[in-house]
Amino acid sequence: MDRAEVLRRLEEWGARLAKSILELEEPAMEIPARTLSNTVWDERARMLRLGPERIRRRFLDVKEARKFMQTVLMLRLIAEAIREGVYPTIRDLYYNGKHTIIYRDPWGRTHSENTWEEQDESNAVIEDIEVAVNALREEMGVSADVKGKVVGPVVIRSQGYELDASKFGETALSLPVNVDALEIVKVEASYVLVVEKDAIFQRLVRERFWSQEGAVIITAKGMPDRATRRFVRRLSEEFKLPVYVLTDGDPYGWYIYSVYKSGSIKLSYESERLATPGAKFIGLTASDIDEYKISDNYVIAATERDVKRARELLRYPWFQRPEWAREINLFLKRRKKVEIEALSTHGLKFLHDYIRDKIRRGKFID
Amino acid sequence: MDRAEVLRRLEEWGARLAKSILELEEPAMEIPARTLSNTVWDERARMLRLGPERIRRRFLDVKEARKFMQTVLMLRLIAEAIREGVYPTIRDLYYNGKHTIIYRDPWGRTHSENTWEEQDESNAVIEDIEVAVNALREEMGVSADVKGKVVGPVVIRSQGYELDASKFGETALSLPVNVDALEIVKVEASYVLVVEKDAIFQRLVRERFWSQEGAVIITAKGMPDRATRRFVRRLSEEFKLPVYVLTDGDPYGWYIYSVYKSGSIKLSYESERLATPGAKFIGLTASDIDEYKISDNYVIAATERDVKRARELLRYPWFQRPEWAREINLFLKRRKKVEIEALSTHGLKFLHDYIRDKIRRGKFID
Repeated sequence: MDRAEVLRRLEEWGARLAKSILELEEPAMEIPARTLSNTVWDERARMLRLGPERIRRRFLDVKEARKFMQTVLMLRLIAEAIREGVYPTIRDLYYNGKHTIIYRDPWGRTHSENTWEEQDESNAVIEDIEVAVNALREEMGVSADVKGKVVGPVVIRSQGYELDASKFGETALSLPVNVDALEIVKVEASYVLVVEKDAIFQRLVRERFWSQEGAVIITAKGMPDRATRRFVRRLSEEFKLPVYVLTDGDPYGWYIYSVYKSGSIKLSYESERLATPGAKFIGLTASDIDEYKISDNYVIAATERDVKRARELLRYPWFQRPEWAREINLFLKRRKKVEIEALSTHGLKFLHDYIRDKIRRGKFID
Repeated sequence: MDRAEVLRRLEEWGARLAKSILELEEPAMEIPARTLSNTVWDERARMLRLGPERIRRRFLDVKEARKFMQTVLMLRLIAEAIREGVYPTIRDLYYNGKHTIIYRDPWGRTHSENTWEEQDESNAVIEDIEVAVNALREEMGVSADVKGKVVGPVVIRSQGYELDASKFGETALSLPVNVDALEIVKVEASYVLVVEKDAIFQRLVRERFWSQEGAVIITAKGMPDRATRRFVRRLSEEFKLPVYVLTDGDPYGWYIYSVYKSGSIKLSYESERLATPGAKFIGLTASDIDEYKISDNYVIAATERDVKRARELLRYPWFQRPEWAREINLFLKRRKKVEIEALSTHGLKFLHDYIRDKIRRGKFID
């Protein structure tokens, strides 16, 4: 969907609101509810999704009037940005829309109120608009940080320019905000390797591991952003490539894997476009400490926070697999975590053998 | 310097140590001291530098023996990595070298000691080796996170592949670990614009600001890493391009600018290769709040940490310019900071006007 189409949808929505006012009806908007209670685990699709609940945001409701005003304001800002051909960041929109409304009540007293106080408020209405008009903010041309980098046998086209990520030497291709505007021209890869850590990504690039393996290697430096998740999903969906995720052996790493695979609670309304349900885990597990003979010297004691997070994972529906239950319980019993770099105790080249071992012998968790 | 040359220097150093042992002399190494007291502000070159102090690390000194062992161990690990053609991360080297030394004293008692406990220790010896053999860890082939992204009229060559950063569409070129291995083939830019924030970088890319201005735009997402600093420096030094740094209007943003320009205390021994003394500041200053009519609604109250940091800046020799003293004192008086996105209160396109205004009218701080 291009920006013109997004603009058409936004204008249509605005016109409907204007029409009700002109017909002296109370303006109201219907928006899918982005609440925890409306976030459901879709077992068949293996991803988090937004449920069927919708909220009705009315103008003549004291509790809703402020939100209503904010939504209309943001609608206007985004429509203006599209018309002017600018690509504001979410923070720009916050500042651009923030102002003080001063009004006088029937008794002559003056009141004032800010359109919004914190960016949380303006971000929330951007998300409401996303679900209401069914367009990603990236498609609306709203900018945000982008973390993803790519190398490997994939050719993309962006604004007419063709970029072959197998011809980047020691550099890498940095993903754009709106991955859907990319054309993926050609992929000649056997799999996609998603790496949690940037430094490991750099190693594998410099050692040309991707070229030996025919793999597309991607990193988002820790918790993935929307652009990186969308790119991984597109490679999986459009080119049927297997996706393997390599993280540290701790609850944070396992959670990062699950965000690629199943989505996150906060962005459940985007899972349908961002999640990669077929992604497999090839990072370190609790039992790998024995499996790969990583001695106590290279293992780190889990913190209280790790333990708390592991207990949370156990409760998530998307970790309800016997393999995960076994691994997480083993972690909770031993309280030991292990980093991917600990494999270097077996030599600086062992990382390659480890990745190949996990993939070739199917030693991954689904 | 390529890896073969680095290896030669490392081997030479190791051979000298071995020779003294074979000749029954006490092995010792001389290393420039990376201490605060040996960090000097070079007023003429306008950068932080390491002074002339050197430490003599002797093997038969109880206080030095552990450090001596660590240095020799790291020397061996890096030499091995070069010989094997691998590019370990600093964390890989930590794990690869970490082990327990068990020994028996003359009275038959067994003692054990780890080669190093934390990564701080292994990182410190990497830095010692850098200054001792005068080679960057990047040149040694040690990997680390890379943050820098580039777009604009610059053509580089990496491992034989030519990359034209003006033909990246909405994507960007992600810098490599070792910027010195890049050949900068051609630059047809009028200036280099370094942007603190990634989201602002994305905006300027999508709005093709760089193309309207003929500018190379670079971001390192906040505090710059070594690769980004080295790349900015090379553009400035080899192509005589003016460099402008755009940050938020707060002590952290001003400090980021100074790291690009003058170097950091921690890495003062690298300033000669990483600093860009000619860089100009075009971010927001304390007086810009009036100058660009940014109303109270868009200004943020400074925290105690901001105030503390501002007082530190006042003491640094590289902030001893009347303009900086005035701005920092004004900040300390008003205790107000302002983000670059606050300019959007004057419209979503105002950012472009602001950058042009600062550059064209010379409204920068040197």
